[in-house]
Amino acid sequence: MEAKIELIPEGNVTSPEGFFAGATSAGINRRAKDKPDLGILFSEASCVATALFTTNRLKAAPVVLSQQRLKQGRAGAVVVNSGCANAFTGEKGLAHAAEMAKLVAEGIGISAEDVLVASTGVIGLPLPMKRIRSGIDQIILSRGGGHELARAMMTTDTFAKETAVKVGVGDSEFAIGGVAKGSGMIHPELATLLCFITTDAAVEKDFLQKALKKAVDVSFNMISIDGDTSPSDMVLLMANGLAGSAPTDAFQQALERVCIYLAKCVARDGEGATKLIEVTVGGALSLAEARLAARTVISSPLVKAAVHGADPNWGRVMAAVGRSGVEVVEAKLELYIGDIPVVKAGAPLPFNKRGLIQLLKGKEVSLSLNLNLGSGKATAWGCDLSEEYVTINSQYMT
Amino acid sequence: MEAKIELIPEGNVTSPEGFFAGATSAGINRRAKDKPDLGILFSEASCVATALFTTNRLKAAPVVLSQQRLKQGRAGAVVVNSGCANAFTGEKGLAHAAEMAKLVAEGIGISAEDVLVASTGVIGLPLPMKRIRSGIDQIILSRGGGHELARAMMTTDTFAKETAVKVGVGDSEFAIGGVAKGSGMIHPELATLLCFITTDAAVEKDFLQKALKKAVDVSFNMISIDGDTSPSDMVLLMANGLAGSAPTDAFQQALERVCIYLAKCVARDGEGATKLIEVTVGGALSLAEARLAARTVISSPLVKAAVHGADPNWGRVMAAVGRSGVEVVEAKLELYIGDIPVVKAGAPLPFNKRGLIQLLKGKEVSLSLNLNLGSGKATAWGCDLSEEYVTINSQYMT
Repeated sequence: MEAKIELIPEGNVTSPEGFFAGATSAGINRRAKDKPDLGILFSEASCVATALFTTNRLKAAPVVLSQQRLKQGRAGAVVVNSGCANAFTGEKGLAHAAEMAKLVAEGIGISAEDVLVASTGVIGLPLPMKRIRSGIDQIILSRGGGHELARAMMTTDTFAKETAVKVGVGDSEFAIGGVAKGSGMIHPELATLLCFITTDAAVEKDFLQKALKKAVDVSFNMISIDGDTSPSDMVLLMANGLAGSAPTDAFQQALERVCIYLAKCVARDGEGATKLIEVTVGGALSLAEARLAARTVISSPLVKAAVHGADPNWGRVMAAVGRSGVEVVEAKLELYIGDIPVVKAGAPLPFNKRGLIQLLKGKEVSLSLNLNLGSGKATAWGCDLSEEYVTINSQYMT
Repeated sequence: MEAKIELIPEGNVTSPEGFFAGATSAGINRRAKDKPDLGILFSEASCVATALFTTNRLKAAPVVLSQQRLKQGRAGAVVVNSGCANAFTGEKGLAHAAEMAKLVAEGIGISAEDVLVASTGVIGLPLPMKRIRSGIDQIILSRGGGHELARAMMTTDTFAKETAVKVGVGDSEFAIGGVAKGSGMIHPELATLLCFITTDAAVEKDFLQKALKKAVDVSFNMISIDGDTSPSDMVLLMANGLAGSAPTDAFQQALERVCIYLAKCVARDGEGATKLIEVTVGGALSLAEARLAARTVISSPLVKAAVHGADPNWGRVMAAVGRSGVEVVEAKLELYIGDIPVVKAGAPLPFNKRGLIQLLKGKEVSLSLNLNLGSGKATAWGCDLSEEYVTINSQYMT
């Protein structure tokens, strides 16, 4: 049965039935005083929920709390703030996260156990709880509040990352919406960044877990901004079932579409980024080797800097794939930059340097490698490395 | 028996007895026309020799050739050029490397099998052999040529990295000299960059191999500039025996001193770097965990950018050690920046922010972490990440 997947115009995390959101400027984020920095996402019907969390050993307090609460496989709301990650804050941080959840639960009238917490921003500072308390009081939830929530999650992001799709398949119709925030300390390790995905489809918990893992593996786990994995990362999927059951194939397909769209948004909006880079590695001995090779190339600061300057220094792509640890045979390698063949059978081809530079100057640059050894294929996304990345990150706290 | 190790003023790779060097401007490096870019290092007595090579799977032609020749455990000379790495150049590249060795062998009057080759620079371009041939003809070897050789190896390096020590222990006296070049595509993986070490001590091949591995593990394997491992890396150690036998302890100690000095020079002179960063991790469960943690922190672009901007964003150090994969317990962590305690028992200490910023503005910044879990301890070196790094690397080829 063919699924019809349509983009919802200006769709976001409240596009699926029964989801409400709202946000406010609580004054947590000192660097963006007019931007909302505290928000709530809520489902009027209790959700089957699952999430993937950071693999960083020093998990932020909201991660510890949300991981614990999701053991029950259900959730009703998430409260999120930017400007302070509540990470490396010890017992006090855990108490702060619990209080945030409790305040939201009381305001909405659900159990505190059903409220998850996410925070992003500076590591090592305590949450300004007075501002959080009065901020939570001020938030008004609405069916159209998804975009405000997206804005509240932004730190150094330059645009809100959100999307939604409507899926029709046979008799069933459901929607999936999503929101994500970048844009530094991002490197694929199981889950990166903050992302909330909502759906009104009715789905079993076990399937939901597997579906999310599979979708994240081809999306968020295939992006890198700077090689640093944050202590706050979380990709959350909440399904409230209001639209009834959904065929699993169609659900998986739509979920991956939403995740890949958001992951590419995050990559494109990496700190200081001026362009999106897409690296595809084919012909690897296995899927795992293709993934590793693509992730290594997308993470190479030298490849990223060369693309930034539209410098056709393709040797750096070869150096990166060579150090990735995957099986490569020089004489079999093929490389395309965009649609221009640059290396074939391990030998550089004569190419039009001016044309190649023109292509590298575009807003999207694709690098395609064929290792010609097997059938493993994977795509990774990232961004160029600019002087601006350094400027942003040398003055983050001061 | 206590060894007396003295720095030789203006010492370099020709300070040990019997070593000769010379260099010329062959015109290989188009970006630095006045600088020598082709050099030869030669020992009048045949050397016991050993080397560590890059772990990159796509090894440059000179690496393939030198690795093969060193199986005999002996060498008499090395020819080195900058400006072109002769990497990813296939069969033609191998032929070019072999021809370089042959020309040098004929000029000096030794067997081509005793000549090693090293190249550094752009990847994927063929060596300009006409310039190499006439360049080799022009080189005049002398006992004082070490410094010219060091200059010939430089690419984006801003200063020549060289040193030598004189060792006296009991009746024996010998010298060890070394030269290294950085300064991009540097990340610890067995061996990084180009480094030649010479000694007039008489040492067995087996000991020489072990001694070099041990010294590189605490020096070149503990530095990172940008996380990229080049296809051209080589650390070579040549011992011509002219000064007679040396006690192994004293030799090891002096060798490590030379290697650590050169490794720190390379770290300090990373592309675009304005300061040296030293990260010490103590109290780890094992030496391996201490090494991994120190290397992860020194490689973090966010830590490097924060140090660049003298931004006391210590949370990034914690995030990096947390993602390193080593065992850490938040409540036991201790961090010093310079001699200022910043975190104790997992909790931030009140600190004088102005004093800390002043300290971070220095040319050398040390970060000391104590995990308080065991006795593993290691030190790693790197540099800050500056806008200049991006500028250099976005215009390397164009």
